[in-house]
Amino acid sequence: MTDIAPLRHFVSGVSELLMTVPNDDAEVSPLVLQAITLQLKRLIEHDDWLPEPFTRPHPQRYRQYLLYADALQRFSVVSFVWGPGQTTPVHDHGVWGLIGMLRGAETSQRWTQGDTFSPVGDATHLLPGDIEWLLPQEGDIHQVSNAFDDRVSISIHVYGANIGAVKRNVFDETGQRKAFISGYDNRFIPNLWDLSDNVVHAQEETAHA
Amino acid sequence: MTDIAPLRHFVSGVSELLMTVPNDDAEVSPLVLQAITLQLKRLIEHDDWLPEPFTRPHPQRYRQYLLYADALQRFSVVSFVWGPGQTTPVHDHGVWGLIGMLRGAETSQRWTQGDTFSPVGDATHLLPGDIEWLLPQEGDIHQVSNAFDDRVSISIHVYGANIGAVKRNVFDETGQRKAFISGYDNRFIPNLWDLSDNVVHAQEETAHA
Ligand SMILES: [Fe+3]
Ligand SMILES: [Fe+3]
Ligand SMILES: [Mg+2]
Repeated sequence: MTDIAPLRHFVSGVSELLMTVPNDDAEVSPLVLQAITLQLKRLIEHDDWLPEPFTRPHPQRYRQYLLYADALQRFSVVSFVWGPGQTTPVHDHGVWGLIGMLRGAETSQRWTQGDTFSPVGDATHLLPGDIEWLLPQEGDIHQVSNAFDDRVSISIHVYGANIGAVKRNVFDETGQRKAFISGYDNRFIPNLWDLSDNVVHAQEETAHA
Repeated sequence: MTDIAPLRHFVSGVSELLMTVPNDDAEVSPLVLQAITLQLKRLIEHDDWLPEPFTRPHPQRYRQYLLYADALQRFSVVSFVWGPGQTTPVHDHGVWGLIGMLRGAETSQRWTQGDTFSPVGDATHLLPGDIEWLLPQEGDIHQVSNAFDDRVSISIHVYGANIGAVKRNVFDETGQRKAFISGYDNRFIPNLWDLSDNVVHAQEETAHA
């Protein structure tokens, strides 16, 4: 069984950071984002904590498993799982986002919007330990793909909202936008808060009950 | 499938209340506790939101399923499930607690500690919708039992800490105390944060995958 402690430490750390941000501040400062990035870096440094149910690919579509959402919906942590060759539509986010590569590799291609809807710059290639920022004010339209056509890739995303409930956009090849709300693919999220020694025994009982 | 919205509203409401409490205040004021009590009252008014995995009794022992814990461990929400005739040891809590009866009925017997270790007053009988307070400063040693010997009873508890990680005490018949940490019986907690329309479809896919 994986030890969920690194995710607990990340969630506690970000929550403590947000205690220092005024409640009415919709925007998080670059300094706070830097601090969250450092904590995310530590979280994805080792690939030994993500419970198996949140690593499962779907045969057709990429999966987005909520791992944690702040009760005031100020941030969320999501496990994105790409099966071989899977890709997202071109989409935006509307809030800040950090993508931390945990397992495998992915490419992220930015798109501009304006008179011409087109890819901008080279695709970013993310390897385990790498982090990419997405900021609405810098343009946050992109398309993400599994870099592998023969294995699963997983990245851990952190967003400045309950991302599964954010009304945002997907874009077709002409740049035509369509509103969407992603939701999540899981009804249950990890219990981060059992710090007792006997948790394994009790859980085994439950699993066998 | 149950609709988890009432629990989401409760968790959000308590979290918003705690935003008004100074960070360094270990004690929550009676006014804040009153406000939490009102919200708990609303939560347990209808027994239609608790997902089935958190209602399952164990043949030998009562179960404590974490439903939610605050990231700063300022409060937690737990589903206590008693099988027919099951009972807790005599125990304390060390933090404030609210017990809201959801299904069935239970009795709570207070104990004093001092020169003589003995039951104090009559047992409280809780029916659905009823709420009992536990405050360390008033003495919070008690024993809780399912009032039924032929059916399951469930109550929703709210505590002023991550209760499963609090070092507290159980007492034997002579009043001898023994330290314990309860932990929780579940590795997964409900995902409260999917507000999208398509959640049922996505979840059904996952369930069948
Ligand atoms: Fe994205
Ligand atoms: Fe108790
Ligand atoms: Mg346990």
